[in-house]
This record gives sequence, C-alpha cells and structure tokens, in this order.
Amino acid sequence: MNIKLELQFDGTDYHGWQIQSGVSTIQGELRRAIKAVTGEVVMPVGCGRTDAGVHAMSYIASYKTENRIPADRIPYALNAHLPPGIICRGAEIMPDSFNAARSAKGKTYRYIIDNNEFPDVMMSRFAWHYRYPLDAALMADAAKAFLGTHDFIGFAASGFSVKTTVRTIHSLIVKREGNMIITDITGNGFLYNMVRIIIGTLADVGGGKTAADAVAETILSGDRSRAGITAPANGLCLKEVFY
Amino acid sequence: MNIKLELQFDGTDYHGWQIQSGVSTIQGELRRAIKAVTGEVVMPVGCGRTDAGVHAMSYIASYKTENRIPADRIPYALNAHLPPGIICRGAEIMPDSFNAARSAKGKTYRYIIDNNEFPDVMMSRFAWHYRYPLDAALMADAAKAFLGTHDFIGFAASGFSVKTTVRTIHSLIVKREGNMIITDITGNGFLYNMVRIIIGTLADVGGGKTAADAVAETILSGDRSRAGITAPANGLCLKEVFY
Repeated sequence: MNIKLELQFDGTDYHGWQIQSGVSTIQGELRRAIKAVTGEVVMPVGCGRTDAGVHAMSYIASYKTENRIPADRIPYALNAHLPPGIICRGAEIMPDSFNAARSAKGKTYRYIIDNNEFPDVMMSRFAWHYRYPLDAALMADAAKAFLGTHDFIGFAASGFSVKTTVRTIHSLIVKREGNMIITDITGNGFLYNMVRIIIGTLADVGGGKTAADAVAETILSGDRSRAGITAPANGLCLKEVFY
Repeated sequence: MNIKLELQFDGTDYHGWQIQSGVSTIQGELRRAIKAVTGEVVMPVGCGRTDAGVHAMSYIASYKTENRIPADRIPYALNAHLPPGIICRGAEIMPDSFNAARSAKGKTYRYIIDNNEFPDVMMSRFAWHYRYPLDAALMADAAKAFLGTHDFIGFAASGFSVKTTVRTIHSLIVKREGNMIITDITGNGFLYNMVRIIIGTLADVGGGKTAADAVAETILSGDRSRAGITAPANGLCLKEVFY
C-alpha cells in the first residue's frame, strides 16, 4: 500500500526534512514513528527538502507499507510516536504511482515578517523580526516583477544542482496584518533559498533601500549580488503542496 | 528612580514569575538582566504571580534604581541580557508611590482553546488542544453567569491565602476564530487558578456535559467539585493590567 501523509511541523528544533546523522530531522522522526507503528523500516519520501528551522502547515510525505492499519487510524498511531512539534493530520491510500516528491505540481510558501520595534515573543519561532519600518504596499508593488516564468539563477544559493533554473511564479501576495507582513508565494517549484532571497529583496524595497521598479532588472541580471539577503529560515513555512 | 517595565513572555520554558531556587523564572531572569545593566541587585515587583507555563502579552513589573540610563533605552539594554522568550517592550519613570502589584486595579486574561481533531503545532505553546467539538455560542451564553461580583471560592485551587474570595468580573467574552476558541476575561482580581477553572467549567458547557444555565448555581454553591477541571496552564495568557 502506498500511503500519503499530511504533516504539520514547527521546524525550530529540527534540522530540516532530510535525514542526517547525529541530528534530529523530520524525516528521521517520521521514519522512527512508522517503525514503531508498523515494525517496518521505510524511507519516507517528502515533497521537498526544507531547511533547518523552516516550518510546514501542510507537508506531504509518502511511504510504502505492508501494514493494514486503516488509513483514518494512521494519524493517531503516528502521533503517539512523533515528538513535540510534529503532527500527522491525515493519511490516505494512494495509487502506486503517487510519489510525494515527483508528483508535486507546485507549492505555496508563506513568509512572515514581524515588523515592529520589539519582537512579538509569541511569533518569534515563526517570524523574522525586522525592526525598521517596511512599506508593505511598496513590497506588494515590487512583487509583481516576480510573476510569470523567469530564470531565477540570481535568486538561488550556491551549491545547488538542478536541470534548469527557470521557474514559474503563479502568485505572490504581500499584505500587512497589524505588525506582521505576510507574503504568500505560489510557484511550480523553487530553487534553493529562492523564497528567502525573494523576501530579502522585497525587504530592501519595503525599507526604501531599492526602488520597486528596479526588481525586474535584478531578476533579468541573474546576479545574486544584486538581490537582497537570504531572509532567516524561521519566518518561512510551507503552506500547501499541489498535486 | 522608580521604573515601570512592560514585559512580554512565552512562559513555556519558565517556572512562572516568582523566583524559586534551582529553576528558571521570569523574575529571576529579569533580576539578572537588571544586574547586568545597572550593577545593582534589585528584587523587581510583578503585577501578579503567574504559574509555570502561563504567558503574558503585557506583564507589568517595577523596580527602584539609582541608575540613570534614559527610560527609552532601558528596553534595549535589558533585551540584550534577557533570554529567549522574554522581551521588555517599554519602560517608564513613575512616581515613588507606584508599585506594579499594589497599584493594579484589574487585569484581562486571554485563554485560547485549539478545538480541532489534531492540534495546530504553531499554536501548541499557547493553546489547550481540546479535540471534541465545543459550542462557543453555548459557552458565551454560560459566561454571563460569571459577570458581576460573586464569592468565587468554588473556583479557586486549594492552598491560597487571601482576605476575601469575593471578586468582580467586568467582562467575559467567548468567540470562535476558525478552530480557536478565544476567551477574554477582565476582572478586579483573580483567585489562584480561577481563570483556568472558569475555562474548564465553560468547556463542560461547550461540550454538552453541563447546561449553560447550571453555571449560576455552581458559582452560588461555592463547591469546587461542581466546577470544571483546571484547564492547562499553556492556554492562559495575561493580556493587560489596569492601573
């Protein structure tokens, strides 16, 4: 049976999705919980690597099992063995062809900036505290330049290995809610650190360091040094995966 | 100089406000930060004891100092020495007569219930996960019985020592926002665990275990065993203190 899981996690205390020796990871904790429930050693497939400190409101994983526990009981069984900050919210039996990584058609990420003089301690795990005023309307304006299909090579951290650096952004919404600036970005895929570099670039616009209409040129240049900083991991959250 | 501080804290990792030997407390961490900034050993006064795991959006403390650092710089100075989860958001010079505890006229507490099948990991530090459906409208209806001046002896944990168990509740608002049931309760003072027992009692009503119109009788009875359970500390947050 091919099982699809929906997970939610607070990434603060984990070193990202992927199993690495000597540190606690989401994949490692999930694998341990699956073993406790089924007795089987499996390597769950994830919808993408997430970096250390990045969160997920809805992360999709899949694994194959001989175990016959009913799908609607799987979340309860796994949650009994998953550590704090990782919750399984749903399970579904899928056709054999489903693979959480290869079947993904797109993703929405959310990035939260806590834009106030002092950080909100209740949001400190989930938001980048940026104390100088940011103009969210300017950021929303600049965000339009990212829409559509572009070569995002200037918005990728080095060390990646991909077939192409061309990606399509379907939507990029920036809005202010009180002291929080919330950005939702949907695309067919994202390069390594791409969302965080986009946020760093938008923060430069919001803070008046870069003009909103200069962003199109920055994308076109393909020059990492012209884009903004890589915004911190803790503000980033995988919101939804599309299949 | 008599300094009034506004603090915010995530109480998850602290054993409440009051200094106790061998554990980390808000008062202890504040005292340490004040010593690092001023060189002085002071015992800051707090607006109230908060239990282990209880949070504060706005907690008021005060202390007397010979130090002449300008009030608007005090938050930055203290924040450089306060541990994660405790933030000073403001400081003000007050008349000598001000005392964060004795001068307090009332308080608003917020209690958050995460009422969904699976807990929201992003709220797990700040909400009581209650998986069975609660009717917030019934809870709001039952809440009316608490308004006004009553002897709340049936809504106090044992072990307290107070002059009177009579308290006045000015307002008690229960509302649902998505999966969260948010209760704001304002009164002139609260007995030990009183807010948490009120929430436990309202949860009994919301879950259909007790009728909304039985609550007035429960208050009148003064019988702790007729009220609900003491709701967990982690859902409770001091929202505002009135002077």
